[in-house]
Amino acid sequence: MKRSERVIRILKTLTDNPAKRYPLGHFAASLGAAKSTISEDVSLIKQTLAQMGRGTVDTVLGVAGGVRYLPGSDCARAETLIDQLCDALSKPDRILPGGFLYIADIVFSPVWASVIGELFAERFRASEAEYVLTVETKGIPIALCTAQSLGVPLVVSRRDARPTEGPSVSINFVSGSSGQIQTMSLPKRALRPSSKVLIVDDFMKGGGTAKGMTELASEFGAHPIGIAILIEMAQPERKLVSDYMSLAVLKSVDAHSRTVDVRPSKRMLL
Amino acid sequence: MKRSERVIRILKTLTDNPAKRYPLGHFAASLGAAKSTISEDVSLIKQTLAQMGRGTVDTVLGVAGGVRYLPGSDCARAETLIDQLCDALSKPDRILPGGFLYIADIVFSPVWASVIGELFAERFRASEAEYVLTVETKGIPIALCTAQSLGVPLVVSRRDARPTEGPSVSINFVSGSSGQIQTMSLPKRALRPSSKVLIVDDFMKGGGTAKGMTELASEFGAHPIGIAILIEMAQPERKLVSDYMSLAVLKSVDAHSRTVDVRPSKRMLL
Repeated sequence: MKRSERVIRILKTLTDNPAKRYPLGHFAASLGAAKSTISEDVSLIKQTLAQMGRGTVDTVLGVAGGVRYLPGSDCARAETLIDQLCDALSKPDRILPGGFLYIADIVFSPVWASVIGELFAERFRASEAEYVLTVETKGIPIALCTAQSLGVPLVVSRRDARPTEGPSVSINFVSGSSGQIQTMSLPKRALRPSSKVLIVDDFMKGGGTAKGMTELASEFGAHPIGIAILIEMAQPERKLVSDYMSLAVLKSVDAHSRTVDVRPSKRMLL
Repeated sequence: MKRSERVIRILKTLTDNPAKRYPLGHFAASLGAAKSTISEDVSLIKQTLAQMGRGTVDTVLGVAGGVRYLPGSDCARAETLIDQLCDALSKPDRILPGGFLYIADIVFSPVWASVIGELFAERFRASEAEYVLTVETKGIPIALCTAQSLGVPLVVSRRDARPTEGPSVSINFVSGSSGQIQTMSLPKRALRPSSKVLIVDDFMKGGGTAKGMTELASEFGAHPIGIAILIEMAQPERKLVSDYMSLAVLKSVDAHSRTVDVRPSKRMLL
């Protein structure tokens, strides 16, 4: 088998299973090549992905070692993507009655969800989250893609406990935007105690929902290691959580002048 | 640039953007190679993916032509995946009080969602759906992955109309499982009239929710081209919709003997 065919097989296998580690011997056996040859193939893949700014291949030597693909973007690409996101969000036809901004097409877009998931995953990769946690509904696609890029399960809390999900833990929280008391529930078996959890949501106004999710995780004895938000509102400046990252800041929606002001967030920490 | 490096760049670009068509000239220009060379690279990728049973590369000649990656599985792999899914669903520790089956970990798993999305997309590829439609909550990950594999947007109907989504169309439908009247809503701008829509959901008992989604699509003047269901219950045998596919059939959940009977569906039509 030629190198060009081997790299196709290795790259496809690795990128289909982000963050999953494959021993070099796995490819050596299935492709009928020496480990040293596979190692050279992997180096070429790693080098080429780096030049494309499209993630990396991480190699660990030794018995428990192997190679894995870690999705990502270089800084230039990440900045471009976030600028494009802010442009897309700033379109005046997104303005809804009541000064709301229509974002459903973006948060449910497979293309955007996958880009955003990669950006979140890369930012929090080092924290070694064991779960991604979100609350239904609009945060689910970006949370799913973040979990996929990290190679961990997604856990979705619901607005109410369901008989179809079994014994659940529910908490009440004060929504930062409406000021009302709301409930979120998570099946008891969904989160392992003491596990590390990354919290993801599409939108933050006051931070009540994000705070609720950290409290819910704590009820399971789990440890929130970070909060990743797609769009935060500039006001109120003081949120109910302090330690979070966001990609974009919504400064204002002016229905009268038909303008939306969305900018890249300073809390990107890329 | 060597062939092995070119195929890495071409494969990564194509698989990152399923169903998106790239003119050969795009790669010829960015990789500094003749179109005939790129064409040979693409043939090698196509041939290798076919041998792996992992989708195909589709080439259209001419000015509006180009190459695109279509995710998929060969029959052997699809059957294996569905058997594994049925095994995973049959675990007795999934039995919940009331005879319900816990499936949240599977429907929210990025790994399963992506496998299931590929199977659904492949099955309905020829129908050229322009949207995937689901209703919140548990169908969202598999619907997102189906939309991603088809290269089309995802549209998610909600249980209630929200001010944050603007003017909406709501319908009432009778839930096949509870017999109760429920509501689902979709923003007016979410679906283009006359467009083709693939309906996706995680679970079907009586078919009321699926029927509701076809009616909702019809309210927009859109055309449902198919219904893809992850798990259907064997009972009631007569559903409110007749034309649907499913991957698995839940025959019984017996809390007393602690057994779950889930089998590959005959409605797979793979």
